[in-house]
Order: sequence, then C-alpha cells, then structure tokens
Amino acid sequence: MPFVSIRLAGTASKQQKAEIVADVTRSLVERLGKNPAAVQIVIEEVSTENYGAGGQLIADRDAPSTRGDAHAEPGQ
Amino acid sequence: MPFVSIRLAGTASKQQKAEIVADVTRSLVERLGKNPAAVQIVIEEVSTENYGAGGQLIADRDAPSTRGDAHAEPGQ
Amino acid sequence: MPFVSIRLAGTASKQQKAEIVADVTRSLVERLGKNPAAVQIVIEEVSTENYGAGGQLIADRDAPSTRGDAHAEPGQ
Amino acid sequence: MPFVSIRLAGTASKQQKAEIVADVTRSLVERLGKNPAAVQIVIEEVSTENYGAGGQLIADRDAPSTRGDAHAEPGQ
Amino acid sequence: MPFVSIRLAGTASKQQKAEIVADVTRSLVERLGKNPAAVQIVIEEVSTENYGAGGQLIADRDAPSTRGDAHAEPGQ
Amino acid sequence: MPFVSIRLAGTASKQQKAEIVADVTRSLVERLGKNPAAVQIVIEEVSTENYGAGGQLIADRDAPSTRGDAHAEPGQ
Repeated sequence: MPFVSIRLAGTASKQQKAEIVADVTRSLVERLGKNPAAVQIVIEEVSTENYGAGGQLIADRDAPSTRGDAHAEPGQ
Repeated sequence: MPFVSIRLAGTASKQQKAEIVADVTRSLVERLGKNPAAVQIVIEEVSTENYGAGGQLIADRDAPSTRGDAHAEPGQ
Repeated sequence: MPFVSIRLAGTASKQQKAEIVADVTRSLVERLGKNPAAVQIVIEEVSTENYGAGGQLIADRDAPSTRGDAHAEPGQ
Repeated sequence: MPFVSIRLAGTASKQQKAEIVADVTRSLVERLGKNPAAVQIVIEEVSTENYGAGGQLIADRDAPSTRGDAHAEPGQ
Repeated sequence: MPFVSIRLAGTASKQQKAEIVADVTRSLVERLGKNPAAVQIVIEEVSTENYGAGGQLIADRDAPSTRGDAHAEPGQ
Repeated sequence: MPFVSIRLAGTASKQQKAEIVADVTRSLVERLGKNPAAVQIVIEEVSTENYGAGGQLIADRDAPSTRGDAHAEPGQ
C-alpha cells in the first residue's frame, strides 16, 4: 500500500519518470516486501517560479541577472 | 477543519469534481460532525505520464503497443 | 488509482474511520468509474496543537480560558 | 529541513510567491532556528474548479449566476 | 530540490528506512542529476487503522475474524 | 482557502507552533488578501528517524558516533 509523492523543481522526461517509478517501486518491494502492484507514485513537476529554497524562488536564484555567474549545483 | 487531497490519474469533468466534493464533505459532516464550511478539498488531476502503479507509468501500462490487449480494470 | 489524504483536527474512532473510507471509495467508484481495489485513503488525526485555523492553533482557540464562552461550531 | 506545501485557490503573481517564500522561510528561521538553506517551499496554484469548500467547488460558489450578489470574502 | 513523501501502512525498522532513503536519493541523483544534499525524504508509518484500501481499513481487511484465511499479499 | 502543510524534522514547542501559525497566516493575508478565517495550517513534527536528507536519515547524520564532531548547522 505505499503511496509516494515526489515533487521536483523543473521538468523530467517521460523516460526519466518511468525510471524513477521503477527504481522507487523496486526499493519498496526489496526493503519492505511490499506488493509491487500496490505501490502508487505521483511525480509533480513544479515550476521554478513555484518552488522556493533558501528563502527565494528557484527561478530568481538561478536567474543570470541575479547571480551573474554559473552555479555549481548539478541540478535543482 | 478537515483538509482533503484527492489525486486522480487522468481527468474529471467539472460536474464529477463537484459531485465528489459534495459527497466527501457530506461524509465528514455526517460521520464526524464537522462544520461543512470548514471542509476544504483539493482534487489534483495527474497526467498518466506522472502517475506510476505496479512499477511503471500508467501511460505505459495502458498503451496498446505495450500491452496489445484490452485491460479489464474499469478505471485508473 | 486515486490516492486520498484526509487530515482531521482531533481524533476519530475506528468505526468512524471505516465509514469514511467506505464513503469516499464509493464516491470515487460511482462518480469516476474507478476500480475500488485501487483506491487508497490515509486518514491523519492531527493534534489540535498542530492544527492552525484563523491564525491560531485550534488548541488555543477552543480553550475555555481564551474564549470564555461556548463555541457554536459543531466540530473542528 | 522543513518542507512546506502551500495550496492556494486561484493564482498568485511571481512577486507574491517570492514574498510568501521569504516570509515563511524567515518565520521558520526565527522561530525554530532552522538553516534557511534547508527550507523548501512549494506553492501550488489550484484552479477554482479543483478546490472545494463548504461542499461545493469555489468556481461554482463564486459564480455570479449562482450567487447573484457580490461576496464579501476578500480572497479565496 | 526534490521532496519525497512516502506513506506506508504499518511500520518499518530504522535500517529499512535508512535503506529506502539511500535508494530513493540515489535514483533522483542518477536519473535527474539532482544534488543529493538537496533531496529531502519523509517516511510516514501509518497505522493500519488509518489506511484504507479497497473500501475498508487495512486493519479490518487483514483481521482473521473478517477473512478467516491467510492472505497472499506479501506486504501492505 | 489556502491550506499549508509544514513538515519539521524534530519537535517544536506549542508556543513555537502558535507563532508559526500566526506568521504564515499573516503572510497569506497581507500578500494575497486571503481571509484569515479560511487559512488552515498543519504542522507535522517528524522523527529524525523518519526524515532523510543528503541520502541518509537525519538521526544517523547527527549521531555523534557517525560524525564525531559538532555540526555547524543551527537546526534541522
């Protein structure tokens, strides 16, 4: 019966979403013995204008005019 | 004060959503004596490309090319 | 595939929770044609010290020393 | 590590969302001593056709043809 | 920035929870290039009296007096 | 109609929770013109054994035997 909600800043391809669903289901089956048919997973792709971190919107944090430099973080 | 979140795979008509809101509110009022004015309900219509079950995206599970047969489940 | 999360201020009896699960599942089956076996519902009974409404904790709003009168709302 | 999810009926401007993210992060830092870098906030702007209150969709509650009068509530 | 919420019916050991956190974080890093430091995961262990599936509480569904037989599902 | 869910690693005092509820409600009223009576907020105090960050449980990350040093982060 597990239910999993995943919220991402930005988007993911259909292939990436399918891989994540497969990975997370496998983990819950292997670690907890859950029935894979009962695992439900929702992936929400949240606009960077709707996701805040460190006190500001990610859309603002990553804006060139705000930062003026490349940021090292490999993903949001 | 109840707050209800409902996540559906796929879409629903405005009429269906209005009926679900009425049904769920009535249940909470009748079963728990909650004030109907305080019941808040959000219905999220999730793309089948963002909803996984049984280890795969529903969009892939339901695709004719993947299954090659009709599936018996009456809904998602 | 619907997943439903219900957050209540306060507690409910096992019988009340069973009735709500039956009611909400029936609504989703009747209104949307969903497979009842695929409907998952979680009921979270939240302490009134952890639930705020109208800018204050329900635990404080309902306290006799704070209000000094009976409140008319039939439930939280 | 706090994670905050905010669901609004209707929409908000980018400026409003940035202000809310700043306000909520500041509260968690001041009240709990949390590291601001660890505060994540998601704002979901929910269509009034997907948000129910008082047993009906907000889209129906606020419709002129349904109410026939101005409503006093300053926001949804 | 991903935030993941996992709701389980029943309980898990600390070791199982640590493994799930490691698995899910690894998936998001590998599939999406997310920064592992930014991945937050909450695991909620929900009482079977608060988790419904198929129209009834799991606590009732699994009760011997209700079913009278062993159930084949390896986990909830 | 806003609904806010706040998940914290660890606990908070009743006074801290009341302050957060007041702060967040004020922000939504000031920034969006929402009716304060319609703002609902739930604060979930999550055990550090159920909250993962950076690929591990916070309970493990903060354990003296694991780290062997004081950590600079002012809060979780």
